[in-house]
Amino acid sequence: MNEFELIQKFFAAQPVVRDDVVIGIGDDAAVLAPPAGKQIVVTTDSLIEGVHFLPDADARDIGHKALAVNLSDLAAMGAEPAWFLLNITLPSSDEVWVRGFCEGLFALAEKHKVQLVGGNTSRGPRAIAIEAHGFISEGEAVRRNGAAPGDSIYVTGEVGDAALALRHLLGEHRLPDADFAAVRQRLERPTARVHEGMMLRRFAGSAIDISDGLMADLGHILEASGAGALIVRDRVPVSDTYRKHIADIGWDPALGGGEDYELCFTVSAQRDAEFSRWQSKFGCRVTCIGEMVSGPGLQIVDAAGEIYRPATTGYRHFSR
Amino acid sequence: MNEFELIQKFFAAQPVVRDDVVIGIGDDAAVLAPPAGKQIVVTTDSLIEGVHFLPDADARDIGHKALAVNLSDLAAMGAEPAWFLLNITLPSSDEVWVRGFCEGLFALAEKHKVQLVGGNTSRGPRAIAIEAHGFISEGEAVRRNGAAPGDSIYVTGEVGDAALALRHLLGEHRLPDADFAAVRQRLERPTARVHEGMMLRRFAGSAIDISDGLMADLGHILEASGAGALIVRDRVPVSDTYRKHIADIGWDPALGGGEDYELCFTVSAQRDAEFSRWQSKFGCRVTCIGEMVSGPGLQIVDAAGEIYRPATTGYRHFSR
Repeated sequence: MNEFELIQKFFAAQPVVRDDVVIGIGDDAAVLAPPAGKQIVVTTDSLIEGVHFLPDADARDIGHKALAVNLSDLAAMGAEPAWFLLNITLPSSDEVWVRGFCEGLFALAEKHKVQLVGGNTSRGPRAIAIEAHGFISEGEAVRRNGAAPGDSIYVTGEVGDAALALRHLLGEHRLPDADFAAVRQRLERPTARVHEGMMLRRFAGSAIDISDGLMADLGHILEASGAGALIVRDRVPVSDTYRKHIADIGWDPALGGGEDYELCFTVSAQRDAEFSRWQSKFGCRVTCIGEMVSGPGLQIVDAAGEIYRPATTGYRHFSR
Repeated sequence: MNEFELIQKFFAAQPVVRDDVVIGIGDDAAVLAPPAGKQIVVTTDSLIEGVHFLPDADARDIGHKALAVNLSDLAAMGAEPAWFLLNITLPSSDEVWVRGFCEGLFALAEKHKVQLVGGNTSRGPRAIAIEAHGFISEGEAVRRNGAAPGDSIYVTGEVGDAALALRHLLGEHRLPDADFAAVRQRLERPTARVHEGMMLRRFAGSAIDISDGLMADLGHILEASGAGALIVRDRVPVSDTYRKHIADIGWDPALGGGEDYELCFTVSAQRDAEFSRWQSKFGCRVTCIGEMVSGPGLQIVDAAGEIYRPATTGYRHFSR
């Protein structure tokens, strides 16, 4: 099966078909008709074998995650997702693998009504780059630079489970089977907070998705906004599974571990009351973990109000 | 130097700044404002080390080519290029390599006034995926499926030099130094026919860029259009350097060799007269190599009108 047959059989077979796709897969490029007056939001993120996933990882999970991490970036801007392109490199045309990959990919695409409109297939070390497009109205994008002292800092869902699963996989902290089963889903099939991200347009002054770790990503908001933050370690939302192991693993995987793809965002005091009334419309819990302050940097305090210094701050490619 | 420093120092330093980029590099996603009433044309293509370029290839050439192959796809649709995203995977943060890569990339970007608006940097085997965006008015896109019997078939520039250079590099056909110097530019720094592509909106019924080889890519037009073609082998435009070696290498590298990134397109009899008056406005030679016919498939005849059968038909990933 050559690249053209592979594209025809698997990639061109997605069920979702959108009216705004004028020309989809099969020409030199796709032609897309954005809604009148909307701006286009675009992002790209990749998964590399041996870096972002293990060689024996389930192809369905990789398909899911490759799209989820991109939808997560769109969500962090408040955008409504619409289209995506897929750049895939494979060592061989392994039909079984590609079928599984497409299952995971298209199941998530269908959930959010996003259509694959083009891409590229090459031979090479296994790697997937996706580029996702969404819409936003002028001035509605939720940026990183809109946080100000006094704003409340929120996190969706729970953080730390992905890091906990990774520690198990790396043999650094063995989990009982049931616990590993509970947290591995968060690492392998993260939830992109698409719906929540779109609601943030109404409330959030700033937002980011947590891919490199809460501290590192909140750090980007602080840097872009020119302000600091004070967060309470024990308010950081963790799962029941995580809490069972907290005596051994502590708070650092929740504070510094990446790949949770939750949203971290700030809400001004002015909007905070209205926001709290809207929280029930979110599909997940939303937790206030602290507030923005005028001094620079991120300060973390424990439940007793003592300064807490984590051992690590977040993942950076190429860092020693 | 970690990924954030690398992005800041090199990738965020592009000189081109467009008014329609609302949010560029540095947030979770870019926000772009397409011109009112225009459609968006998007494409993605990648270069993988060991597949599309050799490990010791010049980083500047790779930067140039990574963008050129995408601009070529936009040109084949008739689109005006505007923005691009860069997904780059590197084994280490080699500053010298990245500096050279950005020089080649941004020199071409500046030539066509396209702006890098976002991307992603990961550790892994060296690979570059670019996603380019352009504009087109409704109904203007030049597709693959618009060719009809009786249309003339044209090729821009010259084909075969990239294949000739590759044969030299693979040791299959040794070239004198001066000849290799002449053809290697076509392989390593291909010209994207951006200006020509935009002019095709006025004339061409169908178009494609020649990345996999003239026969294979014209074959895509035939398949999409449900028609056949008759081309005259000796009319296929080749360079003076190529012609010097034609006794040894024959016509097959020009017919079947990929990576020239010229445009192949069709013009109806109705528009052919007007088109010939406009050819002087093209930045390169434009050659009629044959015509569309009603029978299926591609037929090639030599100068004497005899059927010519090439040994190979074009590059396909994963083909045996």
